[in-house]
Amino acid sequence: MYDFEEERVKQFLREHAAKRVAIQLPDGLKPYADKFVATVKDAGAEAIVLAGSCYGACDIADEMAILAKCDTLIHYGHADMGLPTRLPTLYVEARMLLDPSSALEQAVEEMEEKRVGLATTVQHLGYLQRASHVLRSKGIEPIIGGHGARAKYDGQILGCDLSCARSIADRVDNFVYIGTGLFHPLGISITTGKEVVIVNPISNSFEKLSSSRERFMLDRKAMISRASACDKFGILVSIKPGQFRPELASRLASEFRRSGRIAEILVMDEIIPEGLEDFRGFEAFVCTACPRIAIDDADRFNRPILNPFEAMVLIGRESFKPYKFDEIV
Amino acid sequence: MYDFEEERVKQFLREHAAKRVAIQLPDGLKPYADKFVATVKDAGAEAIVLAGSCYGACDIADEMAILAKCDTLIHYGHADMGLPTRLPTLYVEARMLLDPSSALEQAVEEMEEKRVGLATTVQHLGYLQRASHVLRSKGIEPIIGGHGARAKYDGQILGCDLSCARSIADRVDNFVYIGTGLFHPLGISITTGKEVVIVNPISNSFEKLSSSRERFMLDRKAMISRASACDKFGILVSIKPGQFRPELASRLASEFRRSGRIAEILVMDEIIPEGLEDFRGFEAFVCTACPRIAIDDADRFNRPILNPFEAMVLIGRESFKPYKFDEIV
Repeated sequence: MYDFEEERVKQFLREHAAKRVAIQLPDGLKPYADKFVATVKDAGAEAIVLAGSCYGACDIADEMAILAKCDTLIHYGHADMGLPTRLPTLYVEARMLLDPSSALEQAVEEMEEKRVGLATTVQHLGYLQRASHVLRSKGIEPIIGGHGARAKYDGQILGCDLSCARSIADRVDNFVYIGTGLFHPLGISITTGKEVVIVNPISNSFEKLSSSRERFMLDRKAMISRASACDKFGILVSIKPGQFRPELASRLASEFRRSGRIAEILVMDEIIPEGLEDFRGFEAFVCTACPRIAIDDADRFNRPILNPFEAMVLIGRESFKPYKFDEIV
Repeated sequence: MYDFEEERVKQFLREHAAKRVAIQLPDGLKPYADKFVATVKDAGAEAIVLAGSCYGACDIADEMAILAKCDTLIHYGHADMGLPTRLPTLYVEARMLLDPSSALEQAVEEMEEKRVGLATTVQHLGYLQRASHVLRSKGIEPIIGGHGARAKYDGQILGCDLSCARSIADRVDNFVYIGTGLFHPLGISITTGKEVVIVNPISNSFEKLSSSRERFMLDRKAMISRASACDKFGILVSIKPGQFRPELASRLASEFRRSGRIAEILVMDEIIPEGLEDFRGFEAFVCTACPRIAIDDADRFNRPILNPFEAMVLIGRESFKPYKFDEIV
């Protein structure tokens, strides 16, 4: 299902005369760990698997690889987002070998738009041109937005970088998102105000986002309202290299204190509900780390959790509409 | 219930002209985070709470404190075990203000021993002399063993340093352990072959360890037997400063490979079952990190997990009896 680019990995390891290689991979690719180890061994090196959480290229574990005495790092599943690393690092994007054309063809049957923005995550980027072709063959003009500061490719969307959608919003009637999950299409829709058709290459089906978008806005409004009854806030900072926003956290803490609330900064690696459970002194949290946490994981926290924009709404420094997705760009 | 030594903390912060102070604390002390923040603020500094897991002084988070731009570190709940830190660091041991005397008096009524070894964790060390006094008043001679490499105080026991019990084993009839939980008394009993009376200052009661010890040995034998049916092993390494044993892991991996099994090294920060779930290619694990993990958390892992000694038993390089507790000394 994935292209793991074995030959490119071996080539890279030979070029760097790698002796001890760190392998970093997201949860979804952990079942393939033995394949990655085999590739490294084939290149004559020793493999060390970095087994912690890995949510993106923002989470690049070169420091841990150095601690584990490795000389090179292979990061699977994400595109380079330009963060500096202290070790020679190869990003293997693990493109999915699943053609979205037939799901897209079904979707197009119901579409009346003339111009459509195309966006996807790195896993499905290899099929972006094919998708453009499908749209064109049905008389729809596909427009692919230029990439932002964190995304590497045009048309590539990240949970923290919606630039490729934002940049073309006023030139398209709606968007087609190729991929899975609701978070990225929600980001596109809320940032651009446009409808998004989700074309899912795994289930080989499509759906419209619209109702989810309304529910999302209601949910977030309710979350802000729950948090506004709270006095003691934990401002969460992750030390993951591409999620680390200490200045934003300090600014938020000051603003909250100025508004008469108590706010302290909590620094951790992975921001998970279990890690906050014992901090019973805090009634609500503001997450300055990955924008997905306050949204996708909200139900797992037993206290309100806001993103920085929502926090500013709470203290009256921003208005809820137009809602702004948190981005790190 | 605890002594948080506010004045000593303020003194330390003034001495180091601290401006931005990292506070590290184990789960049990997280509910008191606001007190620690208040102490730092009283000393005129800014407080940053390091909110991740913290299992001991082995887990000292000076690197994270530096990333969080702090200039000093206050570590609550554990005694210094001598690890180097890159920041001025103060250990606040959080001694419990709970006198074990009355529980000990009850226990002594049933004791016929002449000489008894006394051991406890850092939380209850302040009552060690009082406990000695109780024993002496009943005609029992208390013996307190010298501390090992990691423990700071005589009579202090750590999950990874049982020296204070081992050093006096042949001079005592049995042991009295002041504290909670079974892990430490199990360590004492299995390492010394002696009975342990657990005196619990929180529940104000006592119990004998004996039956738990037999169950422990049966459990571990069953665990080794389950693991011996496996071919693919993950050798777990934690990068926590005082749990990091990469050479031991490499040695184990080589031994396992030599015995015809597959073994790869997995490096992570916190070794938790959730972090290993997706590594479906591994059938069993060997944990080289904190000695408690393979024992206390065994039920939470859905695959066998062994400590390094048990791993050597499995491949026939050690015999199960005498069983050796894993120590990092």
